[in-house]
Amino acid sequence: MNHLNQDSLTQAVIERLAHTPNPRLKEILSSLVTHLHAFARDVHLTEEEWFQGIEFLTATGQKCTSTRQEFILLSDVLGLSMLTVSMQNDKPQGCTESTVFGPFHVPNAPQYENGADIANGASGQPCHVHGFIRGKSGEAIANATIDVWQADDEGHYDVQKEGLDHAQARGVLHSRTDGSYDFKSIVAEAYPIPTDGPVGHMLEATRRSAWRPAHLHFMIQAPGYQTLITHVFRRGDKYLEADPVFGVRQSLIADWVRQSDGLTDLAFDFVLNPVV
Amino acid sequence: MNHLNQDSLTQAVIERLAHTPNPRLKEILSSLVTHLHAFARDVHLTEEEWFQGIEFLTATGQKCTSTRQEFILLSDVLGLSMLTVSMQNDKPQGCTESTVFGPFHVPNAPQYENGADIANGASGQPCHVHGFIRGKSGEAIANATIDVWQADDEGHYDVQKEGLDHAQARGVLHSRTDGSYDFKSIVAEAYPIPTDGPVGHMLEATRRSAWRPAHLHFMIQAPGYQTLITHVFRRGDKYLEADPVFGVRQSLIADWVRQSDGLTDLAFDFVLNPVV
Repeated sequence: MNHLNQDSLTQAVIERLAHTPNPRLKEILSSLVTHLHAFARDVHLTEEEWFQGIEFLTATGQKCTSTRQEFILLSDVLGLSMLTVSMQNDKPQGCTESTVFGPFHVPNAPQYENGADIANGASGQPCHVHGFIRGKSGEAIANATIDVWQADDEGHYDVQKEGLDHAQARGVLHSRTDGSYDFKSIVAEAYPIPTDGPVGHMLEATRRSAWRPAHLHFMIQAPGYQTLITHVFRRGDKYLEADPVFGVRQSLIADWVRQSDGLTDLAFDFVLNPVV
Repeated sequence: MNHLNQDSLTQAVIERLAHTPNPRLKEILSSLVTHLHAFARDVHLTEEEWFQGIEFLTATGQKCTSTRQEFILLSDVLGLSMLTVSMQNDKPQGCTESTVFGPFHVPNAPQYENGADIANGASGQPCHVHGFIRGKSGEAIANATIDVWQADDEGHYDVQKEGLDHAQARGVLHSRTDGSYDFKSIVAEAYPIPTDGPVGHMLEATRRSAWRPAHLHFMIQAPGYQTLITHVFRRGDKYLEADPVFGVRQSLIADWVRQSDGLTDLAFDFVLNPVV
């Protein structure tokens, strides 16, 4: 092995993984080394560029806090998150499509009854969201856990607001016996993903827009069904074609209808895929 | 683009890079996206595994400090550093081979005269290191800047020692008019790369050894010549065949000769490649 060169090196690294007890870890690392080396060869990566990469990754890690996940953001803008979601959620026709989780979910959000206002002080136009949770055959799913979160009309999630000590525009509900749910919140608005970190610098260097189309996040769980992580987007949003995280799906775009009393109405039904 | 699926997504991400002003950045990022997605497809990466990857990279970034570079260590153990070095340093026969820079170089190390003891209190067996700096045609290179650094006999570089306020086993010299150099230091010993971080956990999970063969680091610079970054290894070291960072080159293994007076002698000449 003292005569390794740029051609034999990749195989030597893979051979060094030969004694990995977990076969899946071995498979993943071997493939990672193969593709990582292929990338470096493909572009003939220089040492200076390599070091810029080291600095970029280091800054990305150091930007992460308990409420900021810059590596998820990086994965999102490189399309890796959506690719992973797509591969794992190749579901039968009729089931609600999945999209990216995003970096702003918080476990153990406050519990609400149906009909409650989850905005809890977040600024924005009032909105009524309602619909049904059903299975693939049309069956009502009672008592599904519905985890909802969104940004306010200035584009900030509660966890991004310094000094705020309670959840806003975030909550957990459960579907009724007939599968129905409803809650009040605020109208989702387009907003830019955080641009003050390494990922923002990359978007700027590549002249990419940071603006995500308006969306409301849902994570819906029920025994016997696959967990659904998705968004509902607003029809007519000017950023639908250019989502920086590639999360838009045609089937997830809905009409948010402004009514005469000023309240916006959003009706959206979710169809879960049974665990087989 | 609202109908992106796992097959069309990669092309969509690459198209989003179309307006990148710097053509090299565009090339590198496009290739990175292609290979990153190919990796994810190849192993059919799950969302859970994706999240483990996010957590691993985050922890790697957060382990970095001004004296600890865990991302360089990661690149080293994946063979990426050595691949980059090899590609950029494909030099004519007769020139000294390059190897990895490693994470422990410090700029502006103390200056020494030839003959000085750069150990400066570092523990280890005394050693005399000497030789010549020459060009490819055999010409002496006078006044070359010779940056040297190494670990002590417990395997620690000075920057890893808490509370130490001065450089040890680290310094900068200049070659004499005839190209010669010499200094005293300590005998290099094998040591494990740091195992208390994410990279160490990866080595453990893959049952890989963390032990690097003993080596002395050199960075040699002279006007008109390519900078040489390399190590000198010790013949007979039991870790030469299993260097976790893949840095060993046959031509960089030398005899460190223990003499009757207890002093070890290392003679090593370096041949620099002219800038063309």
